[in-house]
Amino acid sequence: MKIKIKKAERKDKKDILMLIDELAKYEKLPPPDEKAKKRLIKDAFGKKPSFKVLLAKVNGEAIGYAFYFFTYSSFLARKTLYLEDIFISEKFRKFGAGKLLIEELIRISQKNKCGRMEWCVLDWNTNAINFYEKLGARQLKNWLYYRISF
Amino acid sequence: MKIKIKKAERKDKKDILMLIDELAKYEKLPPPDEKAKKRLIKDAFGKKPSFKVLLAKVNGEAIGYAFYFFTYSSFLARKTLYLEDIFISEKFRKFGAGKLLIEELIRISQKNKCGRMEWCVLDWNTNAINFYEKLGARQLKNWLYYRISF
Repeated sequence: MKIKIKKAERKDKKDILMLIDELAKYEKLPPPDEKAKKRLIKDAFGKKPSFKVLLAKVNGEAIGYAFYFFTYSSFLARKTLYLEDIFISEKFRKFGAGKLLIEELIRISQKNKCGRMEWCVLDWNTNAINFYEKLGARQLKNWLYYRISF
Repeated sequence: MKIKIKKAERKDKKDILMLIDELAKYEKLPPPDEKAKKRLIKDAFGKKPSFKVLLAKVNGEAIGYAFYFFTYSSFLARKTLYLEDIFISEKFRKFGAGKLLIEELIRISQKNKCGRMEWCVLDWNTNAINFYEKLGARQLKNWLYYRISF
């Protein structure tokens, strides 16, 4: 199976939204409503994008994506590439698309002189955790994550 | 004690770097070297800033700072304000400067239609954890934080 990784453009929006719906179904969560979907596409492909999208494609069909943006480490005085979301359509798993997406993100990190690449994973998602550990990623066990929701 | 919160400008760079050195001393870590300090100021006040800085001032003297930037929640399809660093000079603690900085960050979050404000804290830092809990922040206990360092 020939998997290609490319930067998403606005014309890919239907593919992206279809995969997001599939992710929501897989996680047994409600998919984003129409307003949220509109915001998401605008925030990805508008004048000042809030995040970037990579697509994994097989024969022109989008089978997975990665959403990412740059954060900053004041300790290193370097940018960090933050992976907000990675998803591979269920029937295309185990063919290496996730690894290809991560490898492309590592290349983008290094091109942008990032000191690190970071992301979060749910503690029950052992498949993902094993995948990340095999890639050489390490869990930050001494940091607690805090949030205020508005 | 009259504490004022303001957005930092490039002319505040000496104050910011002095506070960073104080933070490093407090945490018994080596302070950033000259190259890292130069990158930090360039990344804060250059053409495409990687992060923003708020200063807490008393009688014109900088006594604390917050570094922040915007990330993105694909789940909410909204920006998140991420607090990268908050520090108050030791002899100016307990006068409410930290709370004023957080309150200003909440205002900035809401002005920018963020759905959340987030940050990390070291698990031994009980003073900070108590402060955050009192503000109504909640720890995300089911998420694990992963990193690849380059």
